[in-house]
Amino acid sequence: MAQLRIAMAQVNATVGDLDGNAALVVEWAGRARDAGAHLVVFPEMVLTGYPVEDLALRESFAAAAKQALTTLAGQLDQAGCGDVAAVVGYLDRDEVGPRDAVAVLHGGSVVARQFKHHLPNYGVFDEQRYFKPGQTLDVLRVHGLEVGLVICEDIWQEGGPISALGEAGVDVVVAPNASPYERDKDDVRLPLVARRAAEAGAPLAYVNLVGGQDDLVFDGDSMAVAADGSLLVRAPQFVEHLAVLDLDLPGGAARTEGRVGEFTVTRRTLHADPLPAYEPVAAPAPAQPLPELAEVWSALVLGLRDYVYKNGFRSVVLGLSGGIDSAVCAALAVDALGADAVHGVSMPSVFSSEHSRSDALDLAERAGLHYQVQPIADMVAVFTAQLGLTGLAEENVQARCRGVTLMGLSNQHGHLVLATGNKTELAVGYSTIYGDAVGGFAPIKDVPKTLVWELARWRNETGPGAPIPESSITKPPSAELRPGQIDTDSLPDYELLDRVLDDYVEGDRGYSDLLAAGFAPELVDRVLRMVDKAEYKRRQYPPGTKITFKAFGRDRRLPITNGWREGK
Amino acid sequence: MAQLRIAMAQVNATVGDLDGNAALVVEWAGRARDAGAHLVVFPEMVLTGYPVEDLALRESFAAAAKQALTTLAGQLDQAGCGDVAAVVGYLDRDEVGPRDAVAVLHGGSVVARQFKHHLPNYGVFDEQRYFKPGQTLDVLRVHGLEVGLVICEDIWQEGGPISALGEAGVDVVVAPNASPYERDKDDVRLPLVARRAAEAGAPLAYVNLVGGQDDLVFDGDSMAVAADGSLLVRAPQFVEHLAVLDLDLPGGAARTEGRVGEFTVTRRTLHADPLPAYEPVAAPAPAQPLPELAEVWSALVLGLRDYVYKNGFRSVVLGLSGGIDSAVCAALAVDALGADAVHGVSMPSVFSSEHSRSDALDLAERAGLHYQVQPIADMVAVFTAQLGLTGLAEENVQARCRGVTLMGLSNQHGHLVLATGNKTELAVGYSTIYGDAVGGFAPIKDVPKTLVWELARWRNETGPGAPIPESSITKPPSAELRPGQIDTDSLPDYELLDRVLDDYVEGDRGYSDLLAAGFAPELVDRVLRMVDKAEYKRRQYPPGTKITFKAFGRDRRLPITNGWREGK
Repeated sequence: MAQLRIAMAQVNATVGDLDGNAALVVEWAGRARDAGAHLVVFPEMVLTGYPVEDLALRESFAAAAKQALTTLAGQLDQAGCGDVAAVVGYLDRDEVGPRDAVAVLHGGSVVARQFKHHLPNYGVFDEQRYFKPGQTLDVLRVHGLEVGLVICEDIWQEGGPISALGEAGVDVVVAPNASPYERDKDDVRLPLVARRAAEAGAPLAYVNLVGGQDDLVFDGDSMAVAADGSLLVRAPQFVEHLAVLDLDLPGGAARTEGRVGEFTVTRRTLHADPLPAYEPVAAPAPAQPLPELAEVWSALVLGLRDYVYKNGFRSVVLGLSGGIDSAVCAALAVDALGADAVHGVSMPSVFSSEHSRSDALDLAERAGLHYQVQPIADMVAVFTAQLGLTGLAEENVQARCRGVTLMGLSNQHGHLVLATGNKTELAVGYSTIYGDAVGGFAPIKDVPKTLVWELARWRNETGPGAPIPESSITKPPSAELRPGQIDTDSLPDYELLDRVLDDYVEGDRGYSDLLAAGFAPELVDRVLRMVDKAEYKRRQYPPGTKITFKAFGRDRRLPITNGWREGK
Repeated sequence: MAQLRIAMAQVNATVGDLDGNAALVVEWAGRARDAGAHLVVFPEMVLTGYPVEDLALRESFAAAAKQALTTLAGQLDQAGCGDVAAVVGYLDRDEVGPRDAVAVLHGGSVVARQFKHHLPNYGVFDEQRYFKPGQTLDVLRVHGLEVGLVICEDIWQEGGPISALGEAGVDVVVAPNASPYERDKDDVRLPLVARRAAEAGAPLAYVNLVGGQDDLVFDGDSMAVAADGSLLVRAPQFVEHLAVLDLDLPGGAARTEGRVGEFTVTRRTLHADPLPAYEPVAAPAPAQPLPELAEVWSALVLGLRDYVYKNGFRSVVLGLSGGIDSAVCAALAVDALGADAVHGVSMPSVFSSEHSRSDALDLAERAGLHYQVQPIADMVAVFTAQLGLTGLAEENVQARCRGVTLMGLSNQHGHLVLATGNKTELAVGYSTIYGDAVGGFAPIKDVPKTLVWELARWRNETGPGAPIPESSITKPPSAELRPGQIDTDSLPDYELLDRVLDDYVEGDRGYSDLLAAGFAPELVDRVLRMVDKAEYKRRQYPPGTKITFKAFGRDRRLPITNGWREGK
């Protein structure tokens, strides 16, 4: 039998910030040492952040990342963490090309190193653009236990390195990950990790990144599962966390070296023999995954907070229409940044209802944010009179005067502008480009309208406080760009619309599938035409946190110039 | 000896328009038949257009494309083209996944079919996201000659299908392509095609797409080269063209079947025996590639024209500042759409110089376009007074009032707005988001400032007419957002700046490489910081024609949230 204490460091790295990320690793390795850990595991590419996109191809960046790894080995040693073997993800580059890599640092040196094998090239991932796959597996003997390494997608695919490690023989597998959050009806990760632990015939420690990066948010949810599938430890979502796992294993795995399947296995020894017996720490109860709405809210809060802070902003400004979208965005911003960092602007026009003003004010008071009123009538009047604008042109100019107002306040006071559009609007193009679409970040870009309502109700019920006016939740949505306008003048009922969009956008289903699902042909025609025609607006929309299976943006890449019409 | 007349149909397909593209194939197959051709070769994925992006993943689209191919075989036969073997690119989908495919249609049926092997996943290409590679090669005997097929990237990579065909034995190879234009100092395609013809030991007919598709423009430049490297035929760039190639070959290639390297070669016979001897047509002199500036201008004109027309617009509107960028955009629009479809708007502010108005008017008169003046003073005054805007905020609001004006005119009159920014501005962020960056398309988005001047001089010298005022070319560039402002107050000299950007953006070189190239450290620091900080603006910029090795957009994918600073 051999014991090993593994610390799983679920940390929030920043893309490109090699110095900051190295300091983060040193800090958390120190915590791991203080917890008595023998091995500390960081997420995939923790040293560079993830995804670095085309920085992976820049030789100067790859060279700096390799240098930072060497430097980090020394920094860890100097910080008194040299005895804790640290598994650190980084960007490597060799004569073959860039590599998504992990290294084990110990005693001031790199003692093992391995490259990712399975490179995802679907959804938001372009890893075959960036990386060359690895075919070598370094198995490191730590205190008498054979420790294997795999990286992220290597556990999401059948076979590959996990099978090879199982065949070659390991006592434990650690898996640094950068797996973005996506809303799931079911918990998919736990059974996946359990299957891979069984395949390896060893406990598997899955360590995921946490934090926001442009459109993506990583939720953490790190966990370890025994070879028999039992959950050993699970970290909470959306926060940095050090999970400690005390293993007491039979050891003595088969010790094949050399060629195993398509891989070459190399054995390295850090400590040949087991530790003297020690008292294990009591395992805390595994964190439960958050309930669905809490999970989505937390994802949106963290995605927004990290976009703002990691881009050097301290405050945001947004238009408050009295409607549900801007109310939810304001509540998210207050939860992310604190009320003092949130500036709401009511921008009534001649078509604005009394309730739009009173609901905006009510929200501002409930949420405690800064509030001002900037009527747009004078601005709009100059444009419409001088340019002779009527109809849709006159409607749009109102939204655009609001956009110019928010950008003016942003430029003058340094706030980041938030665009408050939801996924349903973005899908059907029910927004004004350079108008309400103005912003540096769009917190609910990937949230369908019906989910916006659910989140509002959930947030009010859950607290703290009930920031969203009841009237904003219950009144019929309206863009208020002409007298008496409501959204359902131009759009199907939102419940129905979101169901069609779920099938068309997320499901990528075609016309006949939609009819087979029971939707009326006229409805399908109308919705699909709106979605297809709005692609040009989506291209110029700000980034926002992905929470669904398929978000607009890099997740769904469609041509603007596109003669294809479903069902034509 | 065996004769064969091959027609190379360099046509302009539209992405997604299966019916329209099928009609295009029937029309040009008719021309090929009228020219006495026995084989007509169309570009890669001509039936679907290229690139279809995520449409490749939609099952309904793939099914429709396969159905359209079968229908097309019948349509060709009914149109009296059934005897001409037609090589047609399309989207296939089998149990393995989507395929970038070509089929040979003859007598109303599909008589051969093959999938692309090498799938580019770099630059603007994401083909490993979309397609599964093919490993079968269908060689078709046409009038006694063994005809092999390869698709696009298959000729850009060493080895692969070309080597296998050479080893198996073919008499001629046809290569449907969709190879986007990119500015080259040298002619790279001809030597490439010649090397592959030598590798195949047979003449190679390279047939490229022509036309614009969002950010891409395909230049045609189709050509055929003999096994000894001699150029047989070459089509002009940027126009649809039917190039006819009369071959008279020894025939009798080795006829291996089955496994060749990693491929499986299947021989099919359309006509076992050679044709009776006939009188070949005289080969026209090969088209010469256009001189560099003419080539770039033609690329920009075609990219703009196809974006406008393929998206259902008939006219454009743009701001005319009196400066060089808007003048060049206006001249491009007139060349692309005719002067009657171009609407210029001078939008002077209180800071606008007298020459900015007179140069704009001069341009409008020279180019013959529609012209109006919309002073922005009244609009700007409302925003600055009501919001208390000063400094940069006041500068930007001027650009944004111009943006709102153009969008208002667009909404009212149905014109597409053109954004007039150049690549240099876009690189360093020297533009106002939602201001001068407003537009559905940006014709010179990928043209560095120094090249904008070169193109202006070239266009005036070459004619017809000299649309661009000499003063717009020679005066110091200015955004005119405050009194006496000129660009070089904020930016390095453009000649120098463009050289730094060429190394940093296109060359992806790092800090020390830039110093080694002789640039001053302060200059490099300043330029790189500006480029890195402006990523968020580029994300919301309209599409525009790629002409360089690396355009902003899908060609250069960098995070917005990015802590990496070169040389830090």
